[in-house]
Amino acid sequence: MARTHKKVRYLPDREDRGLTPASAAQGVEAALKILEGRWKLLILFHLFGGRLKRFSELERAIPAISQKMLIQQLRQLEEDGVVRRIVHHQVPPKVEYGLTDWGQALCPALDSILRWAALKDEIGADPDTTA
Amino acid sequence: MARTHKKVRYLPDREDRGLTPASAAQGVEAALKILEGRWKLLILFHLFGGRLKRFSELERAIPAISQKMLIQQLRQLEEDGVVRRIVHHQVPPKVEYGLTDWGQALCPALDSILRWAALKDEIGADPDTTA
Repeated sequence: MARTHKKVRYLPDREDRGLTPASAAQGVEAALKILEGRWKLLILFHLFGGRLKRFSELERAIPAISQKMLIQQLRQLEEDGVVRRIVHHQVPPKVEYGLTDWGQALCPALDSILRWAALKDEIGADPDTTA
Repeated sequence: MARTHKKVRYLPDREDRGLTPASAAQGVEAALKILEGRWKLLILFHLFGGRLKRFSELERAIPAISQKMLIQQLRQLEEDGVVRRIVHHQVPPKVEYGLTDWGQALCPALDSILRWAALKDEIGADPDTTA
């Protein structure tokens, strides 16, 4: 099996942190649960980079979403500590949505998922069925 | 708002790659779809680090999974190019399961999700509702 790339082996610091396969899998599952929901990832990618958007701007940015659904998804993301709702006390009051610091920190993690997906064509996903 | 930590801002190289919020969200969703399924993450965490396991070893490592379900999850992961089935041509034949190079490359991406989850207590997930 001649390959032009080097084998990528990562020794996980996971084990140093006392995580077993079971607790690591549970941790990832719990984190991914926060991102479940038809529109949450899309909302996040609209807010990454410190962007603040008013409700109406998000509505325009995601035309396929209903108002009710957008409210629901934002509220869930807010409850989970990912999105923050910023109320500017002015007349008339202005409300904007942005990410919490923790929500913003999700950006590199999602980017690493994207990079992984993009890797598929580059490195072997071939099954190597015999040895 | 006095904070002891610095604001974490990541300028995504995503945009350099021509990804819009919609295509980025779709890409992440497609990647996460591969990991869906009650046991897939757990199987992955048992195989990270270049480990090879026989079917019976995986069964013992994950006692709650039925044989039928383990077969199904392994087959799906294999079809998706994450897991490889290694047949050692000996008598009696020996079959082992491991990760493809691409499957192994998922390790740092999942670790970054875990690190993100662990960050919650450290950095602000507080909503900052007024400005």
